[in-house]
Amino acid sequence: MGHSRPVDQAGLRRGNLALLVRTLREHGALSRAQLAVRSGLSKATVSSLVADLELRGLVHSTGVSAGGQGRPGQLVDLRATSACGIGLDVHVGHVGALVTDLAGDPIFSRRVACDVPAMGPERAVDQLAELAGQALAAAAGTVGPPVGVTVSVPGLVDTGTGTVTFAPRLRWRDVAVADGLAARTGLPLERIAVDNDANLAALAELAAMNAEPGEHSADPVADLVYLTGDFGIGGGVISGGVLVRGSVGFAGEIGHMAMDPLGPYCSCGRRGCWETQVGLGALLHACADPDDPVRDPTLDLDQRMRVIRARAAQSDQRTLDGLHQIGSALGVGVSILVNLLNPAVVVLGGYFAALPEWLVEPIRNQVVASVLAPGAGGARVVGSRLGFTAATAGGALVALRRVLDDPTVVPPTQRENEEAPA
Amino acid sequence: MGHSRPVDQAGLRRGNLALLVRTLREHGALSRAQLAVRSGLSKATVSSLVADLELRGLVHSTGVSAGGQGRPGQLVDLRATSACGIGLDVHVGHVGALVTDLAGDPIFSRRVACDVPAMGPERAVDQLAELAGQALAAAAGTVGPPVGVTVSVPGLVDTGTGTVTFAPRLRWRDVAVADGLAARTGLPLERIAVDNDANLAALAELAAMNAEPGEHSADPVADLVYLTGDFGIGGGVISGGVLVRGSVGFAGEIGHMAMDPLGPYCSCGRRGCWETQVGLGALLHACADPDDPVRDPTLDLDQRMRVIRARAAQSDQRTLDGLHQIGSALGVGVSILVNLLNPAVVVLGGYFAALPEWLVEPIRNQVVASVLAPGAGGARVVGSRLGFTAATAGGALVALRRVLDDPTVVPPTQRENEEAPA
Repeated sequence: MGHSRPVDQAGLRRGNLALLVRTLREHGALSRAQLAVRSGLSKATVSSLVADLELRGLVHSTGVSAGGQGRPGQLVDLRATSACGIGLDVHVGHVGALVTDLAGDPIFSRRVACDVPAMGPERAVDQLAELAGQALAAAAGTVGPPVGVTVSVPGLVDTGTGTVTFAPRLRWRDVAVADGLAARTGLPLERIAVDNDANLAALAELAAMNAEPGEHSADPVADLVYLTGDFGIGGGVISGGVLVRGSVGFAGEIGHMAMDPLGPYCSCGRRGCWETQVGLGALLHACADPDDPVRDPTLDLDQRMRVIRARAAQSDQRTLDGLHQIGSALGVGVSILVNLLNPAVVVLGGYFAALPEWLVEPIRNQVVASVLAPGAGGARVVGSRLGFTAATAGGALVALRRVLDDPTVVPPTQRENEEAPA
Repeated sequence: MGHSRPVDQAGLRRGNLALLVRTLREHGALSRAQLAVRSGLSKATVSSLVADLELRGLVHSTGVSAGGQGRPGQLVDLRATSACGIGLDVHVGHVGALVTDLAGDPIFSRRVACDVPAMGPERAVDQLAELAGQALAAAAGTVGPPVGVTVSVPGLVDTGTGTVTFAPRLRWRDVAVADGLAARTGLPLERIAVDNDANLAALAELAAMNAEPGEHSADPVADLVYLTGDFGIGGGVISGGVLVRGSVGFAGEIGHMAMDPLGPYCSCGRRGCWETQVGLGALLHACADPDDPVRDPTLDLDQRMRVIRARAAQSDQRTLDGLHQIGSALGVGVSILVNLLNPAVVVLGGYFAALPEWLVEPIRNQVVASVLAPGAGGARVVGSRLGFTAATAGGALVALRRVLDDPTVVPPTQRENEEAPA
């Protein structure tokens, strides 16, 4: 029976403070009257809540509205530098970091190439901690210490303890990432979260999509499936605006859907997993012979994608056939996801996002052919907006949620003296 | 960013009234002090809320607590007869009805055999309306008019309009069930809902499972996948306690997952859908020759299951091989669902629920072999508790939710005179 928790006065106020912060984050500066209209709260309540947010330094006055329909009023906006969140990223071939301010704008972004499976978990977490130190230094110079840090990992994560349970592509089992990062950086453990990369990317894509309303529909998207494309394939599922995590947090293991009992062996030890059909290895195998330069293992993903795109643009038949094969196999799996989840949007991330001109159409054809609902239940298949930065952007967003969900975690009066006189 | 709605004082009170009603529904009679402990609300708040619920006739005093640890206190309990909900059911071979009181106990239950696809939608809705009339008469004699009516249908439902968009097994397209039922019964349209059978069954199974806490774990189950087994296969997915509906409400079409591009043709016109491998037709084909009496089309499901069970119990090899084949094919699809959704429980409904001794083990073996997460992410595979009544029980439960979610829909003082003196 869902949500059976008592609500008290303090919880009510927290919820409405959060509503105002989110409204400003989505729409930019607004007058108190406009905030009241958009939030559904009364003007008196909005004025009281804005005063509270000003005391916490989270909003400030930014001039007078240009008029328009209503009377001119003093504008309120987020003080973007009042808080920041850090997204960190561990992947097969790199570690990365992104710091964003309260408005979601980047302050610091860096990616360091390294062979994470070969390094082993200890040295990889050393490398991650070094990068986190650079991110913290960058934040200290502009916005102060982060509200939170979220580490993105391509694998199964026990989010309760911040431990990576199993990440086959990294060759990690039971790696205590949050503990390791806290010990190395001095960050408080309760501010460090670890999550699956596709889950974080899905949240970031949803936020990016809904920040540009009206493109396809007036309603914000609430049901989305995100696919990561690399050697491994991951998935993030959002239903009704909420991430589908499953009972232990292991939902979204799309890459290991059993598609073919006689198919090739997978990194997980089983046969015919979806990622053996549509992962980067399958693409390279389909598009190029073993001695082809694009299969050189020292190439990074961007370089490979440039080669594949150039060949496809020149109508190289082997490349086009390979892309069509991958697109069709992607379509079979996507149609299972659409039959099961009826998403409004399926977002192709990772390497798929570099090749939408050749992948989207075979996927759509397969989905229309294989989904029971008329018109595939309205599902659109689109390339990622955020590309390879989706997971770190999602990490920074989740880190900021501590403030976005409950602005009272920032104490009042802390920044009172810094405010410009009204 | 999820739930961005303002909360006001009235909404806060409604939420806490609902919390008390649900607590009483789950635990039975409690003293005000016990209610305060279980709900997390203060004793003063509980007393005020209980007085409100008494005025609405939803609770009444039922004696003094037997003591135990604390001081004895007057017990409060739901007045079960203060409200009722009706679940109606349209299926291939029957229409059904169930009326339950506020506590969830049945007042009226009936099922009428009929050939729904042959009748066509108009006559089938006539038949359903006749049965609804009997249910309403039964309710009128004990608990008064229903809070709501929910119609269960095996197919895609536009829940906003109460229209069945597509139900291949019924051969229905665009059938306005809610309108038809309102016109025939005089029930107000806003009290009639239509929903997918597997969605409703999933909600009922979750409620039944969580009403018996402690069997497997102290925490209530929040992530569950329910499978219907008949000639068609449907699915209901619950994530974090909430039904996964998808963007248009078409989620859960598990039976039409594309499992084999060269497989047999499905009722939907495509090839190799999962239900061609594990539906009742596949079971009968695997277990019996065409002239075998168990394949007589005039037999109902109960009769067929009795025959199959008897043969399996006598170790008939053809039957055991057929059940193993179905169980393994079920396991392949279930492993996809578990990889994707990480449920705590997978519930086998419909005909699967009649054969757990032979189906559960091959499913579990396949799931352990095909799911990436260690120990299959803790997923248990169990037979349904509610059997063929799950969908109507879910319908009655959803109908009652209008009161359970917002007790203020029952006006105060209405039943004040009926109360026994305190």
